[in-house]
Amino acid sequence: MRDNCNRMREKARASGVIFRPHVKTHKTVEGARMQHGGGFGPITVSTLAEAEFFAAGGFRDITYAMPIAPEKLWRAAELASRIDRLNLLIDSEPALRAMEERGHPFDVFLKIDCGYHRAGVSPDSPDSVALARAMLQSPVIRFQGLLTHAGHSYNARNIDDVRRIAAEESACLTRFRALDEELSPLIRSVGSTPTASVVKSFTEVDEVRPGNYVFYDAFQTSIGSCNIDDVAVSVLATVVGSYPERRSAIVDAGALAMSKDLGAGHIDPDVSFGIVCDVDLNPLPVRLTALSQEHGKLEGIAHLPVGTKVRIIPNHSCLTSAMFDAYHLIDGGKVVDEWKPVRGW
Amino acid sequence: MRDNCNRMREKARASGVIFRPHVKTHKTVEGARMQHGGGFGPITVSTLAEAEFFAAGGFRDITYAMPIAPEKLWRAAELASRIDRLNLLIDSEPALRAMEERGHPFDVFLKIDCGYHRAGVSPDSPDSVALARAMLQSPVIRFQGLLTHAGHSYNARNIDDVRRIAAEESACLTRFRALDEELSPLIRSVGSTPTASVVKSFTEVDEVRPGNYVFYDAFQTSIGSCNIDDVAVSVLATVVGSYPERRSAIVDAGALAMSKDLGAGHIDPDVSFGIVCDVDLNPLPVRLTALSQEHGKLEGIAHLPVGTKVRIIPNHSCLTSAMFDAYHLIDGGKVVDEWKPVRGW
Repeated sequence: MRDNCNRMREKARASGVIFRPHVKTHKTVEGARMQHGGGFGPITVSTLAEAEFFAAGGFRDITYAMPIAPEKLWRAAELASRIDRLNLLIDSEPALRAMEERGHPFDVFLKIDCGYHRAGVSPDSPDSVALARAMLQSPVIRFQGLLTHAGHSYNARNIDDVRRIAAEESACLTRFRALDEELSPLIRSVGSTPTASVVKSFTEVDEVRPGNYVFYDAFQTSIGSCNIDDVAVSVLATVVGSYPERRSAIVDAGALAMSKDLGAGHIDPDVSFGIVCDVDLNPLPVRLTALSQEHGKLEGIAHLPVGTKVRIIPNHSCLTSAMFDAYHLIDGGKVVDEWKPVRGW
Repeated sequence: MRDNCNRMREKARASGVIFRPHVKTHKTVEGARMQHGGGFGPITVSTLAEAEFFAAGGFRDITYAMPIAPEKLWRAAELASRIDRLNLLIDSEPALRAMEERGHPFDVFLKIDCGYHRAGVSPDSPDSVALARAMLQSPVIRFQGLLTHAGHSYNARNIDDVRRIAAEESACLTRFRALDEELSPLIRSVGSTPTASVVKSFTEVDEVRPGNYVFYDAFQTSIGSCNIDDVAVSVLATVVGSYPERRSAIVDAGALAMSKDLGAGHIDPDVSFGIVCDVDLNPLPVRLTALSQEHGKLEGIAHLPVGTKVRIIPNHSCLTSAMFDAYHLIDGGKVVDEWKPVRGW
């Protein structure tokens, strides 16, 4: 985890961009400080509860990287007045109006859709430029920049796909900014772990916001963002049922421990729910083939007697981590600390 | 929820069987009491943390319906000594030995595999009879009964499939008990919401343990366990992005609010991640097609402006409910109470 944090921070530093890592993967103050080499630099969050939690933990420059629900603007205004900066996100004119009605001088980014087609305005539409101009001219809000997230990098099948999407992610904001001279002072903020991991340096952008790289996971390994040795989180489980006659076993880590994320099913439709390893993280010849609420079903040739401990590398570390009330930090084979994440909305 | 609770309890009472509902779906003391019409009857739990929580809440007869990890036997012994009964589960000779080594007079059920092939011993194997005899003769444990769970009822495609599996579930324990005269005093305990919902009465069993019926969900509706009007839990979400030009919208309920359970994908491979309704629970012509950590993507013909409230019926109420720190209880259209579930292991 420390290596992952240092490598990404150093890449951002060497590229001369603002480093505003996402903290939603681990949701801990300690983890966010490790991302910043011990400091309290700019961060990105995915819920208002996270924003409030990290503000209480000492972080004073926070981007809430999701379009905010109008009924939560009062909470955002209250928080914004207590820290140096709370950046919010909008991608529509009604959202801008709702912010102006609230009357708080919010710092705001315009969300641009760089091809993921989840949220964000089209970078090629005149309506998007009109919205950007309305934001520039707003008597209430402060328009800070353009933000995009290449979530479609998660559909990549290999590292070349990821590289192509990384180039699009950056180019898209530069292209949009060029549509109107008045837009040129706007910050270009990008962020996704696959794209941030595969590029040698960050170009054509002003700010980067990767998050999952802190832990990585089985999925990121599949698409080429990292090696399996880089994955820094796992679930320790115990074999509670062993059925050698049907080459299966049951561990006490089910859907509520692992999450039901299917991982890189677009590459291997028969993908396991995680990579099952021994306690030293050597992969075992078994697959986690099914999850019910508290049962995980292992199938394969390894005979694992009742009581055997396994460590399971999750498909999606963000979702798996959110299932737990604490992390046990391991250094040199020993548990050296316990970190508590925030939860909820 | 109250109707679901009353209907199932009444069916058990009329059938003359022990009613030991599972509480893992809601994980609240209040919900477990509603399952028992206000009382503190026998319950079934899925984690030791639940057993401890419900014991503290006043429940004194608890079955932990999962093979226990050997290293947790000390916790189980400690809890067992504080309540009237803690039933544990085993399905192997090593597990029996581990209990005997602990030396506590545990109450124990033998888990039988009635066709789900997750945990449990085969009902047709001489080895299973030998294990049952060893349990009867154990100088330490008290062998109480046989327990099975027809989890394969969740693979049913319709109500006729569920009925067939319900018949197998009961018959399997009766058949096993008949293999040896000494086994005849053992309790036969079955439980799965699909099978318990479709049978008119419980026959050939002594105890039933359904759990999901408290809330039901979109999945149970698909396989015929219930009608959509019976589903008693939903997630209230807000539209935070609206993209009529691409017939989509974003709600602030993603994978951490809904869980990534695919629901009845074996019936409809294109199944949505939940049934999206208006606040009065009328289904809307949109589908929840994708979930990322905090974003839910809606696609369909309904135009839902930013700020619109929707209620989403989950695919799997057990997994969705576990994502929240509280339930808002609604009666007559008003929030009348808040319940807090237990969490963790």
